[in-house]
Amino acid sequence: MRYELHYWPGIQGRGEFVRLALEDAGADYLDIALLPEARGGGVPAIQRYLDDDDVARPPFAPPFLKAGRQLIGQTANILLFLGGRLDLAPRDAAGKLWTHQLQLTLADLVLEAHDTHHPLGPDLYYEQQKPAARRRSKGFLKTRLPKFMNYFERVLERNAANGPQLVGRQVSYADLSLAQVVAGLRYAFPQGSRPALADCPRVVELHERMFARKRLARYLASRRRLPFNEDDVFRRYRELDV
Amino acid sequence: MRYELHYWPGIQGRGEFVRLALEDAGADYLDIALLPEARGGGVPAIQRYLDDDDVARPPFAPPFLKAGRQLIGQTANILLFLGGRLDLAPRDAAGKLWTHQLQLTLADLVLEAHDTHHPLGPDLYYEQQKPAARRRSKGFLKTRLPKFMNYFERVLERNAANGPQLVGRQVSYADLSLAQVVAGLRYAFPQGSRPALADCPRVVELHERMFARKRLARYLASRRRLPFNEDDVFRRYRELDV
Repeated sequence: MRYELHYWPGIQGRGEFVRLALEDAGADYLDIALLPEARGGGVPAIQRYLDDDDVARPPFAPPFLKAGRQLIGQTANILLFLGGRLDLAPRDAAGKLWTHQLQLTLADLVLEAHDTHHPLGPDLYYEQQKPAARRRSKGFLKTRLPKFMNYFERVLERNAANGPQLVGRQVSYADLSLAQVVAGLRYAFPQGSRPALADCPRVVELHERMFARKRLARYLASRRRLPFNEDDVFRRYRELDV
Repeated sequence: MRYELHYWPGIQGRGEFVRLALEDAGADYLDIALLPEARGGGVPAIQRYLDDDDVARPPFAPPFLKAGRQLIGQTANILLFLGGRLDLAPRDAAGKLWTHQLQLTLADLVLEAHDTHHPLGPDLYYEQQKPAARRRSKGFLKTRLPKFMNYFERVLERNAANGPQLVGRQVSYADLSLAQVVAGLRYAFPQGSRPALADCPRVVELHERMFARKRLARYLASRRRLPFNEDDVFRRYRELDV
């Protein structure tokens, strides 16, 4: 099956967690935002699914995935759907739920990383909320980030007898997502993320191993991989990296 | 099966979304926080699952559910697990995913409602972040809340031929959660939530119908239903209700 990924152009954003799974699995997919509008791509194609009256089960926001006639929204939900099909999740029901639980916890962390630069809400620019962003970043780096990182380190430790991944004996989409989070944190907070990561050698090693996987490394070196930037979830603002 | 719900005592919080599903289904469950410590209950029982080394798949935070030997965390994930067992989700895979997608969107809304009083992070008291909370609440009530409410109104509209619920022909846990969100919004923002709710008659009607369901009404009138309060997700601060 050819999947269609719908996500805003120009940023990695939450769409990247889906892309990494599709790329790692060598799946056949179209990145709709990258197609010319004349060929049914671009932002209008995405907007149509959000706005049009004939979409029976409309997503609230991108990313969403079209798989045949099915339209699936919410990043973690898309990965829940893809996990089995891409062989990036355990086969048993309990293992699937546990992998999804880890993904939802990663989503919480990603949102908190986002809110460091937008604590007062998405309706204001960063420049309009700098003092609040400084305060929020401080608490994120001092308290929240170590708590999340130590959690994933602990999960890796407890699964160590099975192998150096989060769940069972096989790499899952949650491993790929955790690797992406580490990359994002290092981009946004090169100084401030250092202590938390230094305490979590298994997480750091996982990041390196995932990003070195053959298909993933090829994708990351390609032009399809967008650079991190300051319209994205992870943003590098020197004044927040404390 | 007797389920064990683990959640902090004294607040409805995110645990309430699980409780409403269990109560509506008449499921057999223990609310561990309410049991005396001497009988293996209370906060120590919850803390043990978060801290102890012998928990193979530890949750990051409450709520979590113990179902036999399985331990399941993340509110939406717990409901995904319970949906089929409590007959509060469609039977087909696509319907299950769609219901879960709606629940994840509700979780996003609940977090934004929480962040109105804690925009600078959970490591500060509300009293330490009042001006920021005022700004965030303003944007929430003006922009974000209408966007979310209109979305759920639209989902109800598009399913209207099947019946007055979010998904298919039967009530799901997402309906119960949306009803709880309306109750929380009315508690926290009696003035500020009025315009958004007035524009969404189907959402308001759903809330009333869900809270009038026989088992749910009995629960809501019981002492087991904790009152909303200012340690909870939905908090009533007059200065934020604008």
